[in-house]
Amino acid sequence: MSDPSFSYHSSFLLPSALACITLANSSIFYFYSRENVLRPMDAEQLREHAHKMVDFIADYYKTIETFPVLSQVQPGYLQDLLPDSAPNQPESLEAIFDDVCSKIIPGVTHWQSPNYFAYYPSNSSIAGFLGEMLSAGFNIVGFSWISSPAATELEVIVLDWLAKLLKLPEQFLSSGQGGGVIQGTASEAVLVALLAARDRVLRTIGKSSIGKLVVYASDQTHAALQKACQIAGIHTENYRLLKTDCSTNFALCPDVVSKAISDDISVGLIPFFLCATIGTTSSTAVDPLSALGKIAKENDMWLHVDAAYAGSACICPEYRHYIDGVEDADSFNMNAHKWFLTNFDCSTLWVKDQSALVQSLSTNPEYLKNKASQTNTVVDYKDWQIPLGRRFRSLKLWMVLRLYGSENLQSYIRNHIKLAEQFEELVVADRRFEVVVPRKFSLVCFRLLPPPNDQDNGYKLNCDLLEAVNSSGKLFMSHTVLSGKFILRFVVGAPLTEERHVKEAWNVLQDKAAALLEDEVGWVGGL
Amino acid sequence: MSDPSFSYHSSFLLPSALACITLANSSIFYFYSRENVLRPMDAEQLREHAHKMVDFIADYYKTIETFPVLSQVQPGYLQDLLPDSAPNQPESLEAIFDDVCSKIIPGVTHWQSPNYFAYYPSNSSIAGFLGEMLSAGFNIVGFSWISSPAATELEVIVLDWLAKLLKLPEQFLSSGQGGGVIQGTASEAVLVALLAARDRVLRTIGKSSIGKLVVYASDQTHAALQKACQIAGIHTENYRLLKTDCSTNFALCPDVVSKAISDDISVGLIPFFLCATIGTTSSTAVDPLSALGKIAKENDMWLHVDAAYAGSACICPEYRHYIDGVEDADSFNMNAHKWFLTNFDCSTLWVKDQSALVQSLSTNPEYLKNKASQTNTVVDYKDWQIPLGRRFRSLKLWMVLRLYGSENLQSYIRNHIKLAEQFEELVVADRRFEVVVPRKFSLVCFRLLPPPNDQDNGYKLNCDLLEAVNSSGKLFMSHTVLSGKFILRFVVGAPLTEERHVKEAWNVLQDKAAALLEDEVGWVGGL
Repeated sequence: MSDPSFSYHSSFLLPSALACITLANSSIFYFYSRENVLRPMDAEQLREHAHKMVDFIADYYKTIETFPVLSQVQPGYLQDLLPDSAPNQPESLEAIFDDVCSKIIPGVTHWQSPNYFAYYPSNSSIAGFLGEMLSAGFNIVGFSWISSPAATELEVIVLDWLAKLLKLPEQFLSSGQGGGVIQGTASEAVLVALLAARDRVLRTIGKSSIGKLVVYASDQTHAALQKACQIAGIHTENYRLLKTDCSTNFALCPDVVSKAISDDISVGLIPFFLCATIGTTSSTAVDPLSALGKIAKENDMWLHVDAAYAGSACICPEYRHYIDGVEDADSFNMNAHKWFLTNFDCSTLWVKDQSALVQSLSTNPEYLKNKASQTNTVVDYKDWQIPLGRRFRSLKLWMVLRLYGSENLQSYIRNHIKLAEQFEELVVADRRFEVVVPRKFSLVCFRLLPPPNDQDNGYKLNCDLLEAVNSSGKLFMSHTVLSGKFILRFVVGAPLTEERHVKEAWNVLQDKAAALLEDEVGWVGGL
Repeated sequence: MSDPSFSYHSSFLLPSALACITLANSSIFYFYSRENVLRPMDAEQLREHAHKMVDFIADYYKTIETFPVLSQVQPGYLQDLLPDSAPNQPESLEAIFDDVCSKIIPGVTHWQSPNYFAYYPSNSSIAGFLGEMLSAGFNIVGFSWISSPAATELEVIVLDWLAKLLKLPEQFLSSGQGGGVIQGTASEAVLVALLAARDRVLRTIGKSSIGKLVVYASDQTHAALQKACQIAGIHTENYRLLKTDCSTNFALCPDVVSKAISDDISVGLIPFFLCATIGTTSSTAVDPLSALGKIAKENDMWLHVDAAYAGSACICPEYRHYIDGVEDADSFNMNAHKWFLTNFDCSTLWVKDQSALVQSLSTNPEYLKNKASQTNTVVDYKDWQIPLGRRFRSLKLWMVLRLYGSENLQSYIRNHIKLAEQFEELVVADRRFEVVVPRKFSLVCFRLLPPPNDQDNGYKLNCDLLEAVNSSGKLFMSHTVLSGKFILRFVVGAPLTEERHVKEAWNVLQDKAAALLEDEVGWVGGL
């Protein structure tokens, strides 16, 4: 823990450009009036210092390719670099910038780097960033309509806009019984849907029957559903993770779902919640929504659609078919903060029956009562989510939609998918590798083929390849395991990624693979 | 709904200063490269447009006193002002600024106005704003240590700093079994504490006994606890809202708690969670922590301390005694986004036993596995909270602590309390009013005394006074009800508030009160 390894690679040290530009413009300042009273929100001081921060951040983006994408520090590195306690006296903005450059940035994994291909992307954009600034500028807390009417109303409107881009059925729009809401994350989206579904059925069968409630999803479903079940008190043994395999490209098989449901009913259990995923985390598997919708309907179950990543692609007509059948869903979720240029956090959720959410999540203490809420003429988003307070997040989504326009957003998605296609072709053309599942969106799942008779079928080999690639600092990828195979995940989705980054990433992968095959097994690869 | 009322008061129209300054500097731009490909994160375009946003926000603060503090729009006002769907083609930043001025700002309730005295404050500051900018700039998602080590490590360190300022016991520091974490809101803080406590006891008694679990708190406890109970599946009838009254200034009486617990035990129920509040929402009541800690210990219950608002004051030695007894608590929560100059959201939670949180909230899917997590040498904050994703929120708290220093933060709190004291003196000196509970921090609870034989003991009178004051746009206050009395709440806590704003607020209150007394009851007031 004593030796911070951020000086790991000399070319990754703070670029002098960034250091010079930011620090030369700084001057020591204290936030006081002449009477020596702290003035924490003086408009002119805000202007002066926020301009410096803008330059600092713009310089960061200018130099972002010089940093190792995955941070190379060791656990505990920062403890040795910062003092034990907060200062009594104020410090200068230079001191902060200095520390950000020398102590924080080495510990940052650069999600905005064009060489970031891990997990799923978390898009930043100029529009999204400006929206974050404006939201932080107003710094309102929009729990109820009255606490800032514009925050609620803009959210209602912008979620309708996005629903229309996705061609969601009318029942999800605010004009009827449904509507959209911005949650922090897909985890919160699935949790509130689960709670609404749980309480809807418990109101009928009585809360002491909670031990009979059963949830269904594929074994590829995001762990957020498991966590939501834990939180909501659904018994662990009633959370059915139905097995998938390569025969359906890891999508749920409707027959398997039907069978599980009838088995459970036959022993007195109560199926109540089915989660379909459009674009699973491991491999972008797409569950068959139309078939699942019928099953949910027949069994009076809540159908939640998790399209956290792939939902964004469905604004393009050629990808919209993946959510055909959403008419039968009760809730639909897409993370605008993933692949839709809206800075984290912005997870958009639509429900058909807002009253189900409100019945589960509303509170009405005296200190929050107001005429508008009492007369039921407004939306109070506090009753659609876990927390009470909420930021003015619709601003950034509104700005993304307006500053880019829907046609550009479609091109943005298409360009990433095209780049992923190119990468897939490179993998296919190299006989040492295999593509493991067919690519649907911008994720390529592949692996280095193991030598014949490899003990673990290439598990360690690919694990080592991932380690070699990521510790080079030149790109960052992540992995998954499908049917026991260790798989490399290459996702195109960072806003700065261009063709040259994808090609260079492939070069690095080839080099590291060659070195591994030679060093470890004396094998030149290929089957 | 057809007549947006934002032109309600002519002096509240967009100040021309704001319009001119911001719009004159703007130019039409599109975010494209020469190849006509969208470049959503070009560093130089970011710089240019973010500088414009800085000026827009600084101008907003410069003119903030010209807007009605409480938005005066009618429900549905925005629907008529915005189009039905997102544009296909990009629009300009001027168009956005123009709409923010003419359509959004009229619907904003100005939490940062110096004339904001409602609910509890939600502080913005230059340091907090800069921290938000930097966090949005990096736009990382810090679920696991590896996903950005600096985000996790800075949070651990800064939460230790703040714990030391609050003189929290060592068990809450990261050096042992405990530690701090930034939650979004106090609602999430109490929910995760409740879940950890629930699962700790259910691991012993079995999950089918959830119907026996009982939660205790005063009837003044924030509604967030009730909501947490709903979410966690605690039966409604097992949520004990113990009655308080003016004899204890609305604090919990330990004898009442003890009696309720032994009554429940005698019928086979299982007490497991006690929530103490330091500074209740209605009236800043302070529950007797030391006595409650003993009760919790004797009964093996989890003691959660909600000091969301008043916790900030406890960094001053003269107010620290309010949390004496925190040694016996299991979790302690303070909202740095309320009264500690850290932009929303930043709710700091400390626990003594982090493993209790992790056991309730962890998931470990393959696609998130990594060496650092597997070797148990790091904190993965995803397992301390409801959502998976999380922003780099420690940056803003770190910047607040460093750019201001603890002595200035203490002065900031003391200055607000002094201003509240001055306001209280003004109320006391006017025989038409009464202070309803003794002031402890920066909230004054008071009301206009009703005429003799007033039918509802001044309920409607004070309701009307609140309405008159808030619809003037000159200040914004909120209310509560204590023992059936309608109470006006005046909280000093906005960063820009100075003595003159408090005095002017009192003038408005006196004027509106005089008009009401004369108009409605022909009464000049006073008893």
